[in-house]
Amino acid sequence: MQNFIFHNPVKIYFGKGQAAHVADEAAAVRGPVLLVYGGGSIKRNGAYDDVMAALRRAGSTVVELPGVTPNPRLDKVVEGVRLVREHGVGLILAVGGGSAIDCAKFIALGAGIGEDEDLWDDYVETGRPAPEGLVPLGVVLTTAATGSEMGDAAVLTNPERNRKLGYVSFPLTPRFSVLDPSYLLTLPDEQTTYGFVDMFCHTCEQYLSLPDDDNLSDEMAEAIQRHILRSWRACRRDPRDYEARSNAMWDSTLALNRVISRGKDEDWVTHGIEHAISAYFDIPHGAGLAIVHPHWMRYVYDASPEATARFARWAVNVWGVDATGKSARVLAQEGIERYVDFLRRVGAPLTLAEAGVPSDPATLDALADHAGEAGGSYRRITRDDARAILASCVEPVGF
Amino acid sequence: MQNFIFHNPVKIYFGKGQAAHVADEAAAVRGPVLLVYGGGSIKRNGAYDDVMAALRRAGSTVVELPGVTPNPRLDKVVEGVRLVREHGVGLILAVGGGSAIDCAKFIALGAGIGEDEDLWDDYVETGRPAPEGLVPLGVVLTTAATGSEMGDAAVLTNPERNRKLGYVSFPLTPRFSVLDPSYLLTLPDEQTTYGFVDMFCHTCEQYLSLPDDDNLSDEMAEAIQRHILRSWRACRRDPRDYEARSNAMWDSTLALNRVISRGKDEDWVTHGIEHAISAYFDIPHGAGLAIVHPHWMRYVYDASPEATARFARWAVNVWGVDATGKSARVLAQEGIERYVDFLRRVGAPLTLAEAGVPSDPATLDALADHAGEAGGSYRRITRDDARAILASCVEPVGF
Repeated sequence: MQNFIFHNPVKIYFGKGQAAHVADEAAAVRGPVLLVYGGGSIKRNGAYDDVMAALRRAGSTVVELPGVTPNPRLDKVVEGVRLVREHGVGLILAVGGGSAIDCAKFIALGAGIGEDEDLWDDYVETGRPAPEGLVPLGVVLTTAATGSEMGDAAVLTNPERNRKLGYVSFPLTPRFSVLDPSYLLTLPDEQTTYGFVDMFCHTCEQYLSLPDDDNLSDEMAEAIQRHILRSWRACRRDPRDYEARSNAMWDSTLALNRVISRGKDEDWVTHGIEHAISAYFDIPHGAGLAIVHPHWMRYVYDASPEATARFARWAVNVWGVDATGKSARVLAQEGIERYVDFLRRVGAPLTLAEAGVPSDPATLDALADHAGEAGGSYRRITRDDARAILASCVEPVGF
Repeated sequence: MQNFIFHNPVKIYFGKGQAAHVADEAAAVRGPVLLVYGGGSIKRNGAYDDVMAALRRAGSTVVELPGVTPNPRLDKVVEGVRLVREHGVGLILAVGGGSAIDCAKFIALGAGIGEDEDLWDDYVETGRPAPEGLVPLGVVLTTAATGSEMGDAAVLTNPERNRKLGYVSFPLTPRFSVLDPSYLLTLPDEQTTYGFVDMFCHTCEQYLSLPDDDNLSDEMAEAIQRHILRSWRACRRDPRDYEARSNAMWDSTLALNRVISRGKDEDWVTHGIEHAISAYFDIPHGAGLAIVHPHWMRYVYDASPEATARFARWAVNVWGVDATGKSARVLAQEGIERYVDFLRRVGAPLTLAEAGVPSDPATLDALADHAGEAGGSYRRITRDDARAILASCVEPVGF
């Protein structure tokens, strides 16, 4: 296995009623708590009431920052940074999904850098590491999708510049995260679906990459993928099934807490291209992934014998494709087809048009420019490759 | 899934040359470093030289505590506590396997409790939680077995009282662990074998327990078990194969870093009975496990339909038993038989006599008294059950 460092100190409180622990965590810091959240969903699913009750028990002063949008934006972060400084906030508490969490992470970063530094230009665009000693961050999670609750990554949109960028730095890691699956029971179907697309995609972006060795990470990634597919079906059968929702919630966290990327090159091209799309068109992240991911697969699965063999293994071990008498190439194609069929069945968009995204040459050029040199493991994706993948998104993948 | 808390902040430096990071870690603390190790193996496998070079770079003063024995003992811990207090030690660094690590954990605990408290009577025997603020602990691992490098558990032997007890408390968690697989390349065959028995057993003791739900932990436990068996075969084919050794090392850490016990009752009866054996007879821990584990399996696999179904699933998913036309009971038995055959092939003892342990009634009584009420999930194991399991260890498991 390749050398690596693993360090994930997030304390996870998992299960029904665990938001009560917010009281202990809030009592352990000095200063008010900044509550970062989105629209009204946390007031309907019970999370807001549970958190406020815990904070009352802790005797905390609460400053609220509602209104974080999906694909969270720089202006909301700036507003949060102002509140942190003004009130001397001691704990930033994100209540919601990836948007609230990522917004809160950037608020912590923005409040921790020098007054003469610019959050966007000096950190997000450059990837410069965050300083230590940021205001601590807590999470009360209300979706199953992002993985941000147990990780050091976050994504921010700068709508003025049509930029949406990922940023990874250890100090953004939350101190604790509450994962109460009962908050998922009222999640709209569309969000459930896109959450599953996101977490499944995360596992693939670690698993479908070099090196081609016998790595436990791959064996575990397959286990998580199979389990995600089971949880997905169970949540569709009965969205109010606590067991299914709890499985979805832990699946999504394990999908991106870096356990299954140890020793892997990883390949985040699909996320890179999707970020380009939602930088310009405000579509759900999961919808963009459902469009791009299979098209990326078609573009890279035959890049090398190693790539084809890995896609073939994926088809057999995750999708249950019968390998009898089939070449690796055919198996790989069948796996991708199964995936596309599954996405179609759950109602995810398979083309840009289905998500209302135009595919005229000027748009494709702009998106490809944003994706730029997108990286890649089995196949290095240049700006022109990204454009070719985007151009192929006008029709569903088929062979 | 059942509610749980997960918190594992150990920083892992994995791979060749990673002991160099000991320099940064040592530089981050004040006070000398107490080096805890066993016999001479760390001077042959390169770990000692690497660590000393790193500590020299950090400018650390080093206090040495060699001579930790397998099944580490209370008297060595007392010696270490004295050194910590005498020298104002700032970092306890275990270099070795489970014995060195567990000894170091108890030294940290012993140095952190009140002068009027007794480490053995007040903590190990009672399970009373360790205080916060212990002297920080680092690990440079030279075996693949224990899991102690990324966990809060440790085991200590009190030879005067013929007691060997496990102890679990969060403050015993190491701050960092260096996992360099090249230190395994010279590991004697017997230690390699017993290490694999230990890690495989750990995964089973989490997986073979209630509840009977669709838990990702189980799917991942199977993945780890399959991978352990592959790594085991690869290490036997070529003990100097870095790839195989690196897989073994990460397998063993993932087997016991609490990821696969989330939502599980767990069942540590096998370890409990083994500790009884090695409290009286100084045999390798892995040898004791190889004897007890299949006999425990035979004792519990038909305790309930859930138990039998789980053993059957294990037989199919881990051992590759063909399920066609077979009852769960037959599958479960075939799985256990495959395990016993495998242990026989790798040269592990299958009976008490093979390990030189007597099985006269007085001995069995003493061992059963030590095991006591051993807990259990599918089947609650009383003192008399433990005696029955021990009594069955006079011949290999068969059906």
